[in-house]
Amino acid sequence: MRMVDLIAKKRDGQTLTKEEINWMITGYVKDEIPDYQMSAFLMATYFKGMGDAEQAELALAMLNSGDRLDLSDIPGIKVDKHSTGGVGDKISIPLTPLVACLGVPVPMISGRGLGHTGGTLDKLESIPGFRVDLSEQEFKAQVATIHQAIVSASGDLAPADRRLYALRDVTATVESIPLIASSIMSKKIASGTNALVFDVKVGNGAFMKTEAQAEKLAQALVAIAKQAGVKSVALLTNMDQPLGITIGNSLEIAESIAILKNRGPRDVRDLTVTLAAHMLVLGGKTQSLEQAIGMAEDALRDGRALNAFKQLIKAQGGDPAVVDDPRLLPQAKYRVDVKATQAGVVTGIDTDALGLAAMRLGGGRAQKDDQLDLAVGLVLHKKLGTPVSVGDTLATLHTDSQDTSAIEQAVQRAFTIGQSAPAKFQLIKKVIQG
Amino acid sequence: MRMVDLIAKKRDGQTLTKEEINWMITGYVKDEIPDYQMSAFLMATYFKGMGDAEQAELALAMLNSGDRLDLSDIPGIKVDKHSTGGVGDKISIPLTPLVACLGVPVPMISGRGLGHTGGTLDKLESIPGFRVDLSEQEFKAQVATIHQAIVSASGDLAPADRRLYALRDVTATVESIPLIASSIMSKKIASGTNALVFDVKVGNGAFMKTEAQAEKLAQALVAIAKQAGVKSVALLTNMDQPLGITIGNSLEIAESIAILKNRGPRDVRDLTVTLAAHMLVLGGKTQSLEQAIGMAEDALRDGRALNAFKQLIKAQGGDPAVVDDPRLLPQAKYRVDVKATQAGVVTGIDTDALGLAAMRLGGGRAQKDDQLDLAVGLVLHKKLGTPVSVGDTLATLHTDSQDTSAIEQAVQRAFTIGQSAPAKFQLIKKVIQG
Repeated sequence: MRMVDLIAKKRDGQTLTKEEINWMITGYVKDEIPDYQMSAFLMATYFKGMGDAEQAELALAMLNSGDRLDLSDIPGIKVDKHSTGGVGDKISIPLTPLVACLGVPVPMISGRGLGHTGGTLDKLESIPGFRVDLSEQEFKAQVATIHQAIVSASGDLAPADRRLYALRDVTATVESIPLIASSIMSKKIASGTNALVFDVKVGNGAFMKTEAQAEKLAQALVAIAKQAGVKSVALLTNMDQPLGITIGNSLEIAESIAILKNRGPRDVRDLTVTLAAHMLVLGGKTQSLEQAIGMAEDALRDGRALNAFKQLIKAQGGDPAVVDDPRLLPQAKYRVDVKATQAGVVTGIDTDALGLAAMRLGGGRAQKDDQLDLAVGLVLHKKLGTPVSVGDTLATLHTDSQDTSAIEQAVQRAFTIGQSAPAKFQLIKKVIQG
Repeated sequence: MRMVDLIAKKRDGQTLTKEEINWMITGYVKDEIPDYQMSAFLMATYFKGMGDAEQAELALAMLNSGDRLDLSDIPGIKVDKHSTGGVGDKISIPLTPLVACLGVPVPMISGRGLGHTGGTLDKLESIPGFRVDLSEQEFKAQVATIHQAIVSASGDLAPADRRLYALRDVTATVESIPLIASSIMSKKIASGTNALVFDVKVGNGAFMKTEAQAEKLAQALVAIAKQAGVKSVALLTNMDQPLGITIGNSLEIAESIAILKNRGPRDVRDLTVTLAAHMLVLGGKTQSLEQAIGMAEDALRDGRALNAFKQLIKAQGGDPAVVDDPRLLPQAKYRVDVKATQAGVVTGIDTDALGLAAMRLGGGRAQKDDQLDLAVGLVLHKKLGTPVSVGDTLATLHTDSQDTSAIEQAVQRAFTIGQSAPAKFQLIKKVIQG
């Protein structure tokens, strides 16, 4: 087999066989296929796409390039959730203890933030002492005992994906549905989960700007999951404004604690409960989504979910006292209000711009090795459809620097104030059963 | 500037600016831009193409990556010819002395054969003593004195093209009109010629299989030439059968000598005279193509062209006695006739297959560093439209090996014998004025 022939095959819109894909990924990981051939293949894939079976084979080949966690010793159907990333998306944090406290094991492998989107691991690290780098044994033991763990991927899960991702990043081949889907799935299947709920974000703060693109990605994810024998469901959810009212690491932990205390913003609560319900169904706790919603709401109401979060923090070395007193979380030195200069109603929010504003305050990474300031971020006072008077606070910057005028302006510009209320915000746009 | 942004720009079908292309090619030659980014760019270009100005800028940037011959000291309009490559295409050999003897300087930089197509330099090296690696000074002095030279490109002409070509070869990005055209033109402009005649081959023995593709390439070539201030004309010529009756290095020299003796196959003579006439017009010898044809025919008839070929051979260290006695050229040990097993008329010739047969006899290269057997090749006895009886010789293999049965079969299969004569063979399909 010659790599140049496989590139030509993809370039001409043909489908690669399982054997060809395995040969290619194995050779790439062994450095027998050079980056310059792989990048040509990636660009050909960008233009020509992949079939359902083909992209599943790619995900499985990437999966087989490394270790695969074996969680079969742990009783029960293990269920994980994956979000394609959005601004203010802290859902994993209240969701994991909520599902775990209802008896479904959640072995969650999470990521760090980059660009305008935050990362669950960074957020959790704002809890003093919290460790995300558990060993495989620690991870498995913790899921077995308290039904939950949120950790970073070990170096040996899907190494092909790590190399391909780095190559895509510098060759303008990131935005390809089969490449995105196989990248996600190679890691998720490697983590040993039995079922998956996908939260595919769509809107101006998401990677997928249109519902059609997002649906294509969702279809690819559930198709690969099916091929790999993993049950799944995908939700298309709205990212035309940030989720909740906080953007920033410790701020989002505080908001997550509020949700677990049966308070907090409506959209975060609704999405947490809905995703939890789908996970409960996949985890075999009930066949009725409505009943599952009731179970999740009960667990928020009676404190079981909150208690499970304390267990999670304690198990991973963090200080559970933050749950009772969120002021123990890192606090920024200054607060700066951004005021409205126009009256009306919020008709648009540039979600990316708010994510980037939080990044520029120090709460996110422009480059992979940037250091984070976990205390800083934004608190939103107005969201889509909220009436606004001149002088109202649109958002408050939590900052450790006093020189924030450029960021204030960017935040102000991110709000569009109009005269008539926008269409009702639809949080969950579609559910795609795997 | 970042290469990833230029890749994305091309991927999205936008046009790169002159500054961007220069930055990219300069950075690539300096090893500041890695192969894996360039190959992604090449694949994006394969899919999205380039505009006229853009591909000209690419050719000029590649040209500027190396030296440029300055032939301005040599009086007259220097005219070169470039063929995109075909089977049995020995035209450069009779053409160069024919044009030179009429006072137009021909500074020809030629290539070697690869795959099914031969190379002018290999053919000339079958003349004992003939040197193609002249120094720049030798080359210029020879063009100044005898109006002609046929040499290999020096290592310093368009180094960017050399690296890009090698990269395209292993990344399935060879077949892209702007990449082909800019590659050709970077070298041709670097050779210091003032005008160019392009012989763009089309048909089953050519790189371009359809007239539409060939015309696109021809248009790209004349557009780049214009942008570079080089006068040009492009001819689309038929490669649905080999040119002439010989394929193989010394065999093609013998056929070229026959042409210069005012004999030889009609198609080779017609194409030689036509291309010579266009070169005479571009070289300012006459404005009338018909008059130019007459001048070329006269020079073939009265021996001036033949004499000029002797001068060329002598100037480049070869033995001019081969002109009077072509048996001094390398001769193969054996001759094997391939017979017809069917009666009728030749309705099709698989030209690529005949080129590959000559290669397999040892007359061509499968890999770039293969050694050639200059004596071997094919002589065709039947061409398109020729009647055939059972037992007639279709072609004679000139071979140094006795084990040729597989090649005999391939040659036999390359001829399609039908019952009704094919449409008249049109050698010159189109002329595109630059």
